[in-house]
Amino acid sequence: MKDIKFICTKCNKEFPIDKALYRCDVCNEPLEVEEIKEGKIKEGNVLNQTILDRYSEFFPFVNVDNEIGLGEGFTSLVESKELAENLGVGKIYFKNESQNPTWSFKDRGTIAGVQHALKLGYKRIGTVSTGNMAPSVAAYGSKAGLETFVFVSKHIAPEKLNPIAIYNPNLIKVDGDYGSLYYESLKIGKENNIYFINSDAPFRVEGSKTIAFEICEQLNFNMPDYVVVPTSAGGNIRGIEKGFREFKNCGFIDRVPKIICAQASGCSPIYNAYNNKSETIERFENPNTIAHAIENPFPPSGNETLRIIKKNGGTFVAVSDEEIVECQGILAQSGIFGQPASAVPLAAVRKLKEENYFKGNEKIVCVVTGSGLKYTAAFEKHNLVAMECKIEELSDFIRDEF
Amino acid sequence: MKDIKFICTKCNKEFPIDKALYRCDVCNEPLEVEEIKEGKIKEGNVLNQTILDRYSEFFPFVNVDNEIGLGEGFTSLVESKELAENLGVGKIYFKNESQNPTWSFKDRGTIAGVQHALKLGYKRIGTVSTGNMAPSVAAYGSKAGLETFVFVSKHIAPEKLNPIAIYNPNLIKVDGDYGSLYYESLKIGKENNIYFINSDAPFRVEGSKTIAFEICEQLNFNMPDYVVVPTSAGGNIRGIEKGFREFKNCGFIDRVPKIICAQASGCSPIYNAYNNKSETIERFENPNTIAHAIENPFPPSGNETLRIIKKNGGTFVAVSDEEIVECQGILAQSGIFGQPASAVPLAAVRKLKEENYFKGNEKIVCVVTGSGLKYTAAFEKHNLVAMECKIEELSDFIRDEF
Repeated sequence: MKDIKFICTKCNKEFPIDKALYRCDVCNEPLEVEEIKEGKIKEGNVLNQTILDRYSEFFPFVNVDNEIGLGEGFTSLVESKELAENLGVGKIYFKNESQNPTWSFKDRGTIAGVQHALKLGYKRIGTVSTGNMAPSVAAYGSKAGLETFVFVSKHIAPEKLNPIAIYNPNLIKVDGDYGSLYYESLKIGKENNIYFINSDAPFRVEGSKTIAFEICEQLNFNMPDYVVVPTSAGGNIRGIEKGFREFKNCGFIDRVPKIICAQASGCSPIYNAYNNKSETIERFENPNTIAHAIENPFPPSGNETLRIIKKNGGTFVAVSDEEIVECQGILAQSGIFGQPASAVPLAAVRKLKEENYFKGNEKIVCVVTGSGLKYTAAFEKHNLVAMECKIEELSDFIRDEF
Repeated sequence: MKDIKFICTKCNKEFPIDKALYRCDVCNEPLEVEEIKEGKIKEGNVLNQTILDRYSEFFPFVNVDNEIGLGEGFTSLVESKELAENLGVGKIYFKNESQNPTWSFKDRGTIAGVQHALKLGYKRIGTVSTGNMAPSVAAYGSKAGLETFVFVSKHIAPEKLNPIAIYNPNLIKVDGDYGSLYYESLKIGKENNIYFINSDAPFRVEGSKTIAFEICEQLNFNMPDYVVVPTSAGGNIRGIEKGFREFKNCGFIDRVPKIICAQASGCSPIYNAYNNKSETIERFENPNTIAHAIENPFPPSGNETLRIIKKNGGTFVAVSDEEIVECQGILAQSGIFGQPASAVPLAAVRKLKEENYFKGNEKIVCVVTGSGLKYTAAFEKHNLVAMECKIEELSDFIRDEF
């Protein structure tokens, strides 16, 4: 490992990076890897690179093990001129994270976490998740030949369990307060030599930086004004914001875009804290949203997300399930079918335009966090139609009806 | 359009490329775009390119419209040392086409077809599919703002219908002989100005060439000995073989890998014709396989696939559903969760090793055609397990059991 430290996001206390550490022993706030002040992007074509390889100067690893990767990152940035026009904004782009190996952004943080675990000599990794993170950690654990533990809620639906189980991890349904399992897992990891790569583990945040790095490269370093991120635990939005900050440190970009924290109104603890002018989040009671992937009632990086987004100058938005479903349809009809959580940024943009937060010439990037195939129950919320016709009448039918 | 022609794959009759043509009016065999004899790969980083852009000298388009793309192609090539060792072959790689925008290889052919349709002035596109092709054409039709017609069988399951319908095409369930709909659609297209991008449409085959191009680049032009392709209509395997041939014409590679046509025994018309030493395929009666994505009983490019693979020096294999399911699990436990059809190449490699077709030092690429999330009914075929534990007993449970 390079000479870089973990730092508490709140009190700045330093910790050694060659240990599996997650939170400050003084403030219980998340640790993060020290901010990179200078670095270069590795030359070459991404067809023959991994994200840890291309952006190696932004990670504390001295050497990178490319064999543990599954081809994560380097996802598309797709512009929609039609949507920009309909929304009344300057330009709108979608960073399509559903093109990752397990079809969500989680693979970026997982590879960074697995790399750190291996550097530290761990033979076991784990995670606490019923969403996108569980299949991601299970897949990368399989690839790297690590013993992998996935803790899910006892009440998980089979439709969510199967796509984790197919990778054959040690999959454990946990009976008890699922909300406390995040903290419990860190203790269990310490006792059993399991490196946990949870939602806001420092190296998961490091992995998410590469979303920002790629956006910069894909826009030829002409920065967007806003980047809108569906937010749950807070790990992804923290990573994206940090990535832009590090690229600014290196002189690649002249400003950090304003980052917008987008939540579902059915579970919006960070938005609520912002709205109530509180500096700390409170547990969101009775969460209930179709955007299950971002349904975390007590996000472990909630306070830090509040701090960094206020400092960054961005804002916080919450949108209803009705708006989410509508925007999932609109997004699909632009060619990108994201899971409900992935439609939250588009719904947020629409709302911010209606509220005149956006004036009309903004350049905006929305992060599409995962594939629509991951949550098929959402289909029922859409009014999906099919016609019927006899084969021998098909040509006439088309001539007459269209 | 450049000065390039369509040519009949059987009799070599020439046809103009500025029309929507599909099959020879003499032999009824598929047309293809004339083979490229010289060309260069465009320099630059694929993060800022499209496949039609990077490989533009291998397509007949004078200019490429990048705005109609969704970030197709440039998928990962993942090596598995563990699997190579277990299988007893030299090296094995997986070209993971599930990382495309609609999570299958079909997006490559769709973008090439849409580009051709637009060059010809079409405002309408269509396809006949109940599998991966339908959502792909629906997504790209939406993105390009084209009126899109998707013909599916009347008996399609909702689980297959919804992921097409979400893109909002003109979705028509057709009552009648679905097998004849491929040919019927070409007539309907002509009568109603719809450009059909079916399974082996010439430009779909052109799109599939880019799989070969990328494999060459990703292996630094050190060719694999074999490329194994799950085969249904025959369009994809034809494109991959043609891609290697064109790169050889240009001197990028010194030999074309042997291409292996891998089918499911439950629907193996091309393998059967090869086995029976026939030069033409026969309709496969009562097809029945879990690999629905390659369940085409009368593949429109079946005869041409027979011709080119024999000429190429590759071979034909068929594997059982039991082998497919087992290999889907093995592949997932290497980190890649493909749909059942995507496990057919791995099953084929295992079989060819058992039969001593492979000697043990071969370098093999398997094409993983689509995401495992596309066919969730396959989960039932796996013995997927989860343990259960109370939260307060979790640490002890792990200490004692693992």
